[in-house]
Amino acid sequence: MIEPKLLKGFRDYMPDLMAPRQAMIRTIEATFETHGFLPLMTPALEYAETLTGKMGEEGDKLLYQFKDHGDRAVALRYDLTVPLARVVAQHRGEIQLPFRRYQIAPVWRADKPQRGRYREFMQCDADLAGANSALADAEVLLTGLAVLKALGIEDAILHINHRFVLTGLLIAAGVDAVEQQMSAIRAIDKLDKIGHDGVRNELIEQVKLSPDQAQAIVDIFADDGLTLDTVDALLVQRAGYEGEKRSHSIGRLREVVELVSDAGYAKMIRFNPTIARGLDYYTGIIYETRLTDSRVASIGAVMSGGRYDHLVSSFTKEQVPAVGVSLGLDRLLAAMQELSLIPQGLDKVPVYIAVMDPALKSALLQIAQTLRTFGLRCEVDVAGGKLGKQLERAAKRGATVCVLAGSDEIAAGTAVVKELLSGLQHTVTLEELGTAIAKILG
Amino acid sequence: MIEPKLLKGFRDYMPDLMAPRQAMIRTIEATFETHGFLPLMTPALEYAETLTGKMGEEGDKLLYQFKDHGDRAVALRYDLTVPLARVVAQHRGEIQLPFRRYQIAPVWRADKPQRGRYREFMQCDADLAGANSALADAEVLLTGLAVLKALGIEDAILHINHRFVLTGLLIAAGVDAVEQQMSAIRAIDKLDKIGHDGVRNELIEQVKLSPDQAQAIVDIFADDGLTLDTVDALLVQRAGYEGEKRSHSIGRLREVVELVSDAGYAKMIRFNPTIARGLDYYTGIIYETRLTDSRVASIGAVMSGGRYDHLVSSFTKEQVPAVGVSLGLDRLLAAMQELSLIPQGLDKVPVYIAVMDPALKSALLQIAQTLRTFGLRCEVDVAGGKLGKQLERAAKRGATVCVLAGSDEIAAGTAVVKELLSGLQHTVTLEELGTAIAKILG
Repeated sequence: MIEPKLLKGFRDYMPDLMAPRQAMIRTIEATFETHGFLPLMTPALEYAETLTGKMGEEGDKLLYQFKDHGDRAVALRYDLTVPLARVVAQHRGEIQLPFRRYQIAPVWRADKPQRGRYREFMQCDADLAGANSALADAEVLLTGLAVLKALGIEDAILHINHRFVLTGLLIAAGVDAVEQQMSAIRAIDKLDKIGHDGVRNELIEQVKLSPDQAQAIVDIFADDGLTLDTVDALLVQRAGYEGEKRSHSIGRLREVVELVSDAGYAKMIRFNPTIARGLDYYTGIIYETRLTDSRVASIGAVMSGGRYDHLVSSFTKEQVPAVGVSLGLDRLLAAMQELSLIPQGLDKVPVYIAVMDPALKSALLQIAQTLRTFGLRCEVDVAGGKLGKQLERAAKRGATVCVLAGSDEIAAGTAVVKELLSGLQHTVTLEELGTAIAKILG
Repeated sequence: MIEPKLLKGFRDYMPDLMAPRQAMIRTIEATFETHGFLPLMTPALEYAETLTGKMGEEGDKLLYQFKDHGDRAVALRYDLTVPLARVVAQHRGEIQLPFRRYQIAPVWRADKPQRGRYREFMQCDADLAGANSALADAEVLLTGLAVLKALGIEDAILHINHRFVLTGLLIAAGVDAVEQQMSAIRAIDKLDKIGHDGVRNELIEQVKLSPDQAQAIVDIFADDGLTLDTVDALLVQRAGYEGEKRSHSIGRLREVVELVSDAGYAKMIRFNPTIARGLDYYTGIIYETRLTDSRVASIGAVMSGGRYDHLVSSFTKEQVPAVGVSLGLDRLLAAMQELSLIPQGLDKVPVYIAVMDPALKSALLQIAQTLRTFGLRCEVDVAGGKLGKQLERAAKRGATVCVLAGSDEIAAGTAVVKELLSGLQHTVTLEELGTAIAKILG
């Protein structure tokens, strides 16, 4: 006998959790689709070389890599963005740019499991490839915000920044080398987790900055009062940002914030120069969305992403700029549970058909068939036993009504509908049964 | 630069294929749910020991196995049935039996890729655990048949058999050893692929039967005239089936066929004593469903399964009988494509909003937002350029209408709806825009 157990960092979604999770997925799909995104599905397994080197060294370490039966180095996908970039390059001939696609699928990272952090988790991504306009950025952000709204979540802030604003601020602090900028960004990305002192230490020890440089960076990022205007001034004065460089970074950020605000989300979007995003491939706007309700504020970013204009070029000579949003389904689910936003009863089957007389099995299955064509969720008792036992089973399973039909009822073309909570019983004709039950279920 | 390519046996589902595939998944989910099944999700990765030894030796060879970062032997799931058995054993305390669950998820088998056979494919499984009644069998079969019906597939035959009927026929042919019966069943399972001679050879060479025994088996299974009655007589006379043994095998089969036939599927269910199913874990009814339309008859089994009363006991002392149905999504999709059953236009975004004046971006995004709350799928042009270019782009992407609004229209609270096929244009107020477009789209 094998002990039934899960791998550490993995979990089963039982129906009480999976039913609402699935309802969320349907809402997300529908929202992505109204925003013009179409579904795409890529394999769980890719050539390892397709995935490595795009997420930074730390990311690569988290890849589930192995040799397959043909001794090929393969890996489970770590995100949905790199596979998309591969798809755009590989199927370039059949793709009409700009290309909007969504993918809702699990990804795997051999991360240290923590409360709310799993090694397999569902990402819900919508990406727009083939356009580098502010409108493209705005469409993607509006899509993500519309998902949150559709899920009933409005107490959230989308913290937005721009990679070039970030590097501009690093230049302003005296960090000019691109390599050091990238490591510094990864350090700043941990601000929430390790605090200012932690970031300062990492900048000195890992990034090899001088204590003065590290302090200058921390001073800039510790300033809660930084606005688009003050940062703009800082970039012009201390990083030499001007002309196209300025309009494509701080200018773009300004425009995107304005478009999203005008579309009704002014309260949900905020410039935040400390947003860094750990992944190497971002080149434009970057953002993270955090829930503001104190009950769920500790859940972390529920929706993040950014612009990555060079990722597709890892696979082809053509430049295909792209921008995307990624929602963390399981964090959102945890938040919605905590906020009581999960509809009740999704994991219940409301109609139970008792089997009072085994000779009537066929008749009862036919009744079930008819109710099901009405869209009613019902099950026929398959375990048998006395009626009392069957009613008990129906109640335990959370059914709302039980259909009772013995040979007299069947002969008369009727059935009894018993409301399990009140005990009320109604005799109705089989023709009216579906309507009668639908009425009781409301 | 990395060459963008897929692993052999894997594929990308581009939107033209993924959109209908997803519509199918929604139909399957809805049908499973009306039949009382609730969603469950298990991880893609399991301890290897959880999965091995349940599908026969050949099955084990197809497992994607590797050592994870903690040096644990892990494997990608090979089917959804073994993980379900693990779940039932592991979560026994929180599960109400009988337990109906469904799971629609990819599985991985390092099989030899062939036309229509991939190494990653989607299974759609509904299983009922905790009851061993004929009604349980019938409910599961009716669920599967209802899915086919909901997908528009009625030219199909569910070929049903029973493991004990199969072993009875082997006993009738003189094969008494359980081990040999199991290997013989795996040989018979290949009848469709390798023919009578192939099976005879395999019975002699692999199963080590005498030529006479092998011939006797082939003679029995080559007889197209075998009915439930003739097989019943054969089992009574030559395999000593009687009493409970008889009623639990051929009797059960008879009852299940009757219940399913009475429920309206008489033409779609047929007893077929050659159905063997390769997996070791079946203990009761076993079945495979094949499409009968000559255009798709070569696609193979699209829906199969059976009863497995001892699989859960691989993980716990408790006996939990179970029965299930598994639909092969990708084979069904291939069949539906061939039969022109795929709805058109699922991979199109019907509404395109042109951007005639960059100063109006915000206004146009707001129009898009309103249309989207109507459930209309629309995209705002994010690539810019002259109107003609934008209309061309809209047409190429298969949009049905294009919304045109310049500063005059916006000032007047109106927009022009251009039907792309006819070129017809209508000016409508922004309030009426959603209704007007919905009307055009039908």
